[in-house]
Amino acid sequence: MSYNTFGRMFRFTTWGESHGPALGATVDGVPPGVPLSEDFIQRFLDRRRPGTSKHTTQRREPDQVRILSGVFEGMTTGTSIQLMIENTDQRSKDYGDIATSFRPGHADITYHLKYGVRDYRGGGRSSARETAARVAAGAVAQAVLAAILPDVRIIGYMVQMGALHLDRSRFDAAAINDNPFFLPDAAAVGAWSDYLDGIRKDQNSVGAAIEVLVQGCPPGLGAPIYAKLDTDLAAAMMSINAVKAVEIGEGMAAAALTGTDNADEIRMGPDGPAFLSNHAGGILGGISTGQDITVRFSIKPTSSITTPRRSINAHGEEIEVITKGRHDPCVGIRAVPVAEAMAACVILDHLLMDRAQTGGRRGQIG
Amino acid sequence: MSYNTFGRMFRFTTWGESHGPALGATVDGVPPGVPLSEDFIQRFLDRRRPGTSKHTTQRREPDQVRILSGVFEGMTTGTSIQLMIENTDQRSKDYGDIATSFRPGHADITYHLKYGVRDYRGGGRSSARETAARVAAGAVAQAVLAAILPDVRIIGYMVQMGALHLDRSRFDAAAINDNPFFLPDAAAVGAWSDYLDGIRKDQNSVGAAIEVLVQGCPPGLGAPIYAKLDTDLAAAMMSINAVKAVEIGEGMAAAALTGTDNADEIRMGPDGPAFLSNHAGGILGGISTGQDITVRFSIKPTSSITTPRRSINAHGEEIEVITKGRHDPCVGIRAVPVAEAMAACVILDHLLMDRAQTGGRRGQIG
Amino acid sequence: MSYNTFGRMFRFTTWGESHGPALGATVDGVPPGVPLSEDFIQRFLDRRRPGTSKHTTQRREPDQVRILSGVFEGMTTGTSIQLMIENTDQRSKDYGDIATSFRPGHADITYHLKYGVRDYRGGGRSSARETAARVAAGAVAQAVLAAILPDVRIIGYMVQMGALHLDRSRFDAAAINDNPFFLPDAAAVGAWSDYLDGIRKDQNSVGAAIEVLVQGCPPGLGAPIYAKLDTDLAAAMMSINAVKAVEIGEGMAAAALTGTDNADEIRMGPDGPAFLSNHAGGILGGISTGQDITVRFSIKPTSSITTPRRSINAHGEEIEVITKGRHDPCVGIRAVPVAEAMAACVILDHLLMDRAQTGGRRGQIG
Amino acid sequence: MSYNTFGRMFRFTTWGESHGPALGATVDGVPPGVPLSEDFIQRFLDRRRPGTSKHTTQRREPDQVRILSGVFEGMTTGTSIQLMIENTDQRSKDYGDIATSFRPGHADITYHLKYGVRDYRGGGRSSARETAARVAAGAVAQAVLAAILPDVRIIGYMVQMGALHLDRSRFDAAAINDNPFFLPDAAAVGAWSDYLDGIRKDQNSVGAAIEVLVQGCPPGLGAPIYAKLDTDLAAAMMSINAVKAVEIGEGMAAAALTGTDNADEIRMGPDGPAFLSNHAGGILGGISTGQDITVRFSIKPTSSITTPRRSINAHGEEIEVITKGRHDPCVGIRAVPVAEAMAACVILDHLLMDRAQTGGRRGQIG
Repeated sequence: MSYNTFGRMFRFTTWGESHGPALGATVDGVPPGVPLSEDFIQRFLDRRRPGTSKHTTQRREPDQVRILSGVFEGMTTGTSIQLMIENTDQRSKDYGDIATSFRPGHADITYHLKYGVRDYRGGGRSSARETAARVAAGAVAQAVLAAILPDVRIIGYMVQMGALHLDRSRFDAAAINDNPFFLPDAAAVGAWSDYLDGIRKDQNSVGAAIEVLVQGCPPGLGAPIYAKLDTDLAAAMMSINAVKAVEIGEGMAAAALTGTDNADEIRMGPDGPAFLSNHAGGILGGISTGQDITVRFSIKPTSSITTPRRSINAHGEEIEVITKGRHDPCVGIRAVPVAEAMAACVILDHLLMDRAQTGGRRGQIG
Repeated sequence: MSYNTFGRMFRFTTWGESHGPALGATVDGVPPGVPLSEDFIQRFLDRRRPGTSKHTTQRREPDQVRILSGVFEGMTTGTSIQLMIENTDQRSKDYGDIATSFRPGHADITYHLKYGVRDYRGGGRSSARETAARVAAGAVAQAVLAAILPDVRIIGYMVQMGALHLDRSRFDAAAINDNPFFLPDAAAVGAWSDYLDGIRKDQNSVGAAIEVLVQGCPPGLGAPIYAKLDTDLAAAMMSINAVKAVEIGEGMAAAALTGTDNADEIRMGPDGPAFLSNHAGGILGGISTGQDITVRFSIKPTSSITTPRRSINAHGEEIEVITKGRHDPCVGIRAVPVAEAMAACVILDHLLMDRAQTGGRRGQIG
Repeated sequence: MSYNTFGRMFRFTTWGESHGPALGATVDGVPPGVPLSEDFIQRFLDRRRPGTSKHTTQRREPDQVRILSGVFEGMTTGTSIQLMIENTDQRSKDYGDIATSFRPGHADITYHLKYGVRDYRGGGRSSARETAARVAAGAVAQAVLAAILPDVRIIGYMVQMGALHLDRSRFDAAAINDNPFFLPDAAAVGAWSDYLDGIRKDQNSVGAAIEVLVQGCPPGLGAPIYAKLDTDLAAAMMSINAVKAVEIGEGMAAAALTGTDNADEIRMGPDGPAFLSNHAGGILGGISTGQDITVRFSIKPTSSITTPRRSINAHGEEIEVITKGRHDPCVGIRAVPVAEAMAACVILDHLLMDRAQTGGRRGQIG
Repeated sequence: MSYNTFGRMFRFTTWGESHGPALGATVDGVPPGVPLSEDFIQRFLDRRRPGTSKHTTQRREPDQVRILSGVFEGMTTGTSIQLMIENTDQRSKDYGDIATSFRPGHADITYHLKYGVRDYRGGGRSSARETAARVAAGAVAQAVLAAILPDVRIIGYMVQMGALHLDRSRFDAAAINDNPFFLPDAAAVGAWSDYLDGIRKDQNSVGAAIEVLVQGCPPGLGAPIYAKLDTDLAAAMMSINAVKAVEIGEGMAAAALTGTDNADEIRMGPDGPAFLSNHAGGILGGISTGQDITVRFSIKPTSSITTPRRSINAHGEEIEVITKGRHDPCVGIRAVPVAEAMAACVILDHLLMDRAQTGGRRGQIG
């Protein structure tokens, strides 16, 4: 509801520019008595960290998080948690030539038009570096979920990179963290690597599609009409830099289905309702069904490429822009841990909202 | 931020169940001194009204709106506006058999699980009837936009219904309001009509995709990072019943693009920046560029069909469900004016937020 | 956070003008499964209703509430509740002469300056009639509290009217509802009645002070730093028409106390901490202690009096204003049920917020 | 609306504990293009800084603020501003004995009950040290006000300390900043100093009352019904540690007035309405009149005194508590710059909200 704040009961506000002294997240609404350490958060940040493979920017940031408040003797206290990451590898000189020029496809021009003044170094506030703060906030959400909803598991992975698509028949969750693409198919990693090498050598970049799976989410989360679980997940993902679409369950493909195809039939299982399919992606009427929640989104190719593009500058002159610096040929890769973080925040937020309103009680079946 | 409230500065809260005495919207944050009448709002409601063609539910509701507050002598006063629509054609007996049974693909089961108690008549709160209240609120937004941003124009239309796709080479905005499908291609209406007749005769329903175009939106609307214009548009559309995906600009197709393809190059036009393409859909970094804004979303087929589906009831018994009553074979049709209403609310909300923060000043080019 | 909305988790938005067709409250965030009826709400409204004694306005409004949504078969469903009260006794002609003139001490001039247009009839939106909507919303809160916090009891009463003060040594809660002043001292009613008769005969009005006691509130409600329980109670009371001050516990008198006097010492009682005094008014650090919560506020005398006062009109002319119509000589009287309603909303809101964050768990003593 | 966030459009979230590594404020909704420097903010912090006279705690904190984001080349960019103050003089050992004991009149016991775990060092989150973050946020508000509403001036001062009252006939604004009491009467400083010396020597503390005057505020700020200007000022002041009452204009004294006394009569002045008195304290119907706004509040005596008080500890044992450490004998003194900061934030927030809704247009008189 506020410009730099995400969430309702569990809320975080991010701050910081790409090349300022630091960035971070102020996290509020955290339940007390939850174990939380810098090491725990760091594990999540390390998954997103640049420079870990040849396929991500060579900017080398340790992205070391510090907890400045809200945790005492290893436990959350219920007060606001400040998470700070210092910027240690800002090479501002790389970016001097974009002080007054606008990269096509980039937020340079819209920040200029809206605010009149902007920190142009490294994209300033519009840099994907902001997503480190999201990952830190998401780690807090994961810690709370581990304490109060231990069965929930949030898994992100790539399903498309440019012309390449995941072969879903080969889906293997165990492979995800063993390759630089968060790809659930170990056998395809070589081809994906070659493909992206080609993109980079062409001085180009490429888009991607990411999927996030939330397993173990209980039924009943989501607050219709305007705080539906899918509404908030859509907002969460769309707020990530470069995202251009969000799908739940069948997504855009639902437009082609008939009612008989689409309905997820229900039988009684040992523990309650058992759905025979999951076209809905785990959400009906904005409320979780208890099935796996599936969210998918696209990431556009980064606009920071070394191939010259026609543009203008703040003086109204027509120019050609070549973006030097250290940019990811596929920013979608590092969006995976970011999306997991956002999903964790949404699930926790809705868990807190639900226990506010219903006290956690559930309607009975049988 | 609240369950039944949408918006930040321009906000509306909807209330009402499908078969209760009335439904409506409480609209707040409305600028004063704007001409507004029941007739003006009614024109928008009439576009969404059921029973206007054989392709929508035969439920006959006049959907007559009353303004109960916030307007004096034909002008908004700046106080909260209550818009009420009485329900006059509730045939509750049609729905008695679903009091304890759950339609597959419908919110019946999730409302039951979350709340324990629900108004099952006609889907109660989860009925698409709630969208009438959105349309009424959107009409207020349209009135305000007409007063303070008169160049903006919001146009919704169908681009897909099941197996049928709009031929974009034949796009004709003038045709949209002359056919029951909001289809911008007069020549295709016959085929779409036959197709939907077939669906209905098969006791089935079908999905759809809708596109909304916002023309004349000035640059600078949108408040990064978490109140981005596209974030709020995504939330707005995803909150509509049965929506399963939202796309901005290239949408999911962005995943397949390269950076050279995707970047919208810029030249100087007579009135400032002139973009040579619009892959971005009019939004960069969450802020409007001044180009047309394009939003697209899918609507799943309604789950209320007369073909029997396997399900369970609240007693835990396995049953077959046949949904009688008067249901649209393609709920996507009536989603068009709903989506326009949501877009109008988002644009106005961001206009107000922007003038709060920046006072409406813009960075200069040239 | 919004203009016409009060509350965080349990929220209500009021709408309606004094002489419009109706007014009401849209209540959101209500827990499901709570018994609620129009009769229950009506009992609260009847306590505030005008025309019940010679000491309140002779405007005769039945103030009959209708529940239009959110309740099904006598139970809350968790969806938004619309409460509507139709205006049946609007004598607009009484107010015609104030269309362009400004009553000194009244909101006429500030509404005019801010909005340019206003419904001047009966004060429009700034009329104390708006408080009927608060009372209706408060009744919903009371219903929920009765279900989930049955020990809580909220009692309002007058402690001052102009020159007259309650003799606290004679405090008798049982007397409150047996006299038109909500005065907890039956023996003083005659003197208060004579005093107010004199005020009215002098064509004057008089201020008042009200106290609200919340008994049975558990410890732990309140969310520091900016959603402290006392902060929200202060906002709740200050938002009531004509309120000029709010005190918690010792209130302004705390300025004169020393630390030794002010500290509420603690011993162990049979059920936990037992405080030896209650200077704090039941709240420490913004969180309830478990003691009685005491809130006190002043109400200024109504500015609508028949004694001529110097003023101006919208044409910039200097005039004398005499306010005819049917006004209370002491609006403070009817503020008592309003204040109880606001207190009920705050307590419930914090109860929901607390169970969101802490799950209702409490730190142990002993 | 959130636990640690204050404000609607101009919002700040504070974080940090008394003895943690740092504390600060995350400020959001700041208009772009406003000059802002650490030096400017520091001037406000220095007024609140402890250790500047014998009458405040001898804790020696330089309270040096750092701007970590949102300002570029000396100008606000419209993005979130992080203000950090490192804690450099934490003597945790002073507080070890209160790890499990509860000071009477202090938030120790309520934090324990609510959260189960708390940072007990120096009061942790409930320490008045949090107010440094408010002052920093308030300085940002002052910078913005200087840019867009340059005539506004916010002046705080003490009007009471225990048994001593300001003699208003001797009010001299010029004296306020020349004495350690923020007292607008230079001649009384000696007596106040002697009085407070006596309190401290008695191992005691004392309450105070503070007044804040907002001069030059234009008419039209305030958003009835639930975001009234006085409502938000009341919440702002009541949220400050140890505040027990807030008054606007006549405050509690309004209860004793008659309508003829209380009405502020109006004549035409050279620039529009001229009020002949200001009982209202500059606010009618929740909207500013253009007169001086007057807010007054009480501060209770600090509960951290060296005189033994009866209490209990977390083990349920009855104990005596003597609070060592370095505490202010009158915390009200340092509340003056804090209250000014809160008033600045409220005025700016309402200025932004007003220009969102009305575009800054005003109704005409004459």
